[in-house]
Amino acid sequence: MADIPAVAGFRWGGVEAGIRKHGGRPDLALLVADGPAACAGVFTMNDMAAAPVLLSRAKAAAGTARAVLANSGCANACTGAQGMEAARRMAAALERRGIDASEVLVASTGVIGAPLPVAKIEAAAAKLLAAARPDGIRDFARAIMTTDTREKIAFREGSVSGRRVTVAGACKGAGMIMPNMATMLGFLATDAAAEPGPLQAMLREAAADSFNAVTVDGDTSTNDTLCILASGRAGGPPVREASGGAYAALRALVREVCVDLARAIAADGEGATKFIEVRVEEAFSPYEADVVARRIANSPLVKTACHAADPNWGRIMAAIGACGLTIDPQRVGISVDGADLVERGVGLGDEAEREAAVQMRKSSFTLLVKLGRGSEVRSIYTCDYSAEYVKINAEYRT
Amino acid sequence: MADIPAVAGFRWGGVEAGIRKHGGRPDLALLVADGPAACAGVFTMNDMAAAPVLLSRAKAAAGTARAVLANSGCANACTGAQGMEAARRMAAALERRGIDASEVLVASTGVIGAPLPVAKIEAAAAKLLAAARPDGIRDFARAIMTTDTREKIAFREGSVSGRRVTVAGACKGAGMIMPNMATMLGFLATDAAAEPGPLQAMLREAAADSFNAVTVDGDTSTNDTLCILASGRAGGPPVREASGGAYAALRALVREVCVDLARAIAADGEGATKFIEVRVEEAFSPYEADVVARRIANSPLVKTACHAADPNWGRIMAAIGACGLTIDPQRVGISVDGADLVERGVGLGDEAEREAAVQMRKSSFTLLVKLGRGSEVRSIYTCDYSAEYVKINAEYRT
Repeated sequence: MADIPAVAGFRWGGVEAGIRKHGGRPDLALLVADGPAACAGVFTMNDMAAAPVLLSRAKAAAGTARAVLANSGCANACTGAQGMEAARRMAAALERRGIDASEVLVASTGVIGAPLPVAKIEAAAAKLLAAARPDGIRDFARAIMTTDTREKIAFREGSVSGRRVTVAGACKGAGMIMPNMATMLGFLATDAAAEPGPLQAMLREAAADSFNAVTVDGDTSTNDTLCILASGRAGGPPVREASGGAYAALRALVREVCVDLARAIAADGEGATKFIEVRVEEAFSPYEADVVARRIANSPLVKTACHAADPNWGRIMAAIGACGLTIDPQRVGISVDGADLVERGVGLGDEAEREAAVQMRKSSFTLLVKLGRGSEVRSIYTCDYSAEYVKINAEYRT
Repeated sequence: MADIPAVAGFRWGGVEAGIRKHGGRPDLALLVADGPAACAGVFTMNDMAAAPVLLSRAKAAAGTARAVLANSGCANACTGAQGMEAARRMAAALERRGIDASEVLVASTGVIGAPLPVAKIEAAAAKLLAAARPDGIRDFARAIMTTDTREKIAFREGSVSGRRVTVAGACKGAGMIMPNMATMLGFLATDAAAEPGPLQAMLREAAADSFNAVTVDGDTSTNDTLCILASGRAGGPPVREASGGAYAALRALVREVCVDLARAIAADGEGATKFIEVRVEEAFSPYEADVVARRIANSPLVKTACHAADPNWGRIMAAIGACGLTIDPQRVGISVDGADLVERGVGLGDEAEREAAVQMRKSSFTLLVKLGRGSEVRSIYTCDYSAEYVKINAEYRT
């Protein structure tokens, strides 16, 4: 992975605080701005939203923040009043270093229901702040990993209002992933100047096409958090509204970073051996396109067939038909990276399947479904199901 | 499994017709009545309903049938006009033996998209009819198996209008199982006397609490078919309406047979090592109870935790919260076969988890979730997810 340039006004860091059951890995991450930064966030819609989500959702609404403090190894979810108190103490861990609790967003990931060992976070906070560097995004990304096999970072550079700006981000997956309005944990920083309102608007739009388009297993987490901090250090007038050229330019960069990160989550889904884009075209409505693409992407039968590079298109047809949308089979077409499998609802035969199987042996491919009902489009990013997925999740807490 | 008594007026049989790719197993099944029988059926709601479903749905509406002819090894689904012609020829396979095509319901299960080798069915039909016996239900049940590891049969005896009646049934699972309005393949026979209208009403009611309460993998098949034939040979006045004592008595027997069969499907889900009942109580509405129970039962994370006997209740909370029902976590309780795990949304600690883990090591247990919002109840039957599930479905067509 290419090196990520620094984002002016920010430092990133990661250290081992001893939160994880099995040590030897960093588990506490910090993104800190040199001064107050504009901020925006989107969070899980799960009714069981974790304590750090409840706390950070309220803070993000204020529109300004200095830092994000995130831990892996414990989700601090379903932990009741004690969990809220632990999240508050976590946010206050840098107060002696001059960063007020009101300026710190917190995020947690790991086992649900276990109490957060917040004293360990308090003990490690000063060391973490000292370790944070402008080029430390990789350390940050490693410290938020759980069952991820690799860190996930992305960046874009571009021009906004005539100034060169940078957007960088880090995120983690890798299970309980079908975010609803956000993702597991994703953090972006930019040196662009923007007010919280338009920043929130562009983040929400970007999430729709990126993190909200990922599914590993159809399970929506209690801790999904995506936030962005903007330092304004690139200079120039701030983006003040959710419209106009500067807004569009920055939104494009934010969206691209989010899509890169989201695809990285799907590619590194638990036990995954392949990245799969399920693309639905010719849908009647955006809703229909999303429902069909998501149903296919969540079908264990489709995912196991992908694992085996078996172009078992009947499973895709069954998933489409199960959506309850009165879709006419005779208009459905299916192909895999250009290899046609189904036309007008009927399979094209053994030779076509052999060609599709060749495409499916690649580590990345697109299942394209055309519904013949309209012009709406939706891509959902997912991965195959392997026996390793079962192994990882059967042994997760042991 | 106990022997199933004969149902007066019916014969069952199964033979090998050579439909399966790998031979050596029976693949063609027949249930035949001595004369015209009242019949009723419920079928998949999948938009991609297979040719035999389209044909049998129309025939069942007529209310009278002589026979059900079913094959495994090929679903005859997504096969277009050729598939409809093949299904029609299949229904006509016993015409030379005096059973008109209009009296024969057909059903198929197996690979989707492959053409039905109907000539093999025609060639084997006479042999199959000759092999059918009053006590042949086990042969029938074996011939409709696909990835099932054992045949599934059930029966009940009881009194209807003062006459002793018998209801017997056979079904198959074991993958692409989350029936919507019916099940993969299920066939019942009774010697009770009943008209088609009340027979249809009781079958639909029974399906709601049995086959429609099963999920193995959340995938709804193109071929789900459940039907019942009633010979009237028990004597007595026929059940003429969907109300009254005789209706209730027969409905209870039909329902119990369906529940037995549905539980057998869940217990024999692909790769399953445990039968799990997910029971939701204190729901606000029947819809809410069903949505929550189904979401938990379909969660790969819950199913893999069950496989490992890990009382990872955080995954159950996350699944509940992901339903979008604005459920208050502080009212939620969770237990496993009497071992309490969660009260008021918070875990009860390590000792409680150890006791729950003991329950989860059994081959059958109930996950009970109380929502604290009302008095509605729903049970969904499912199984755990093992690495074997992935193996079976990755290699299904090879």
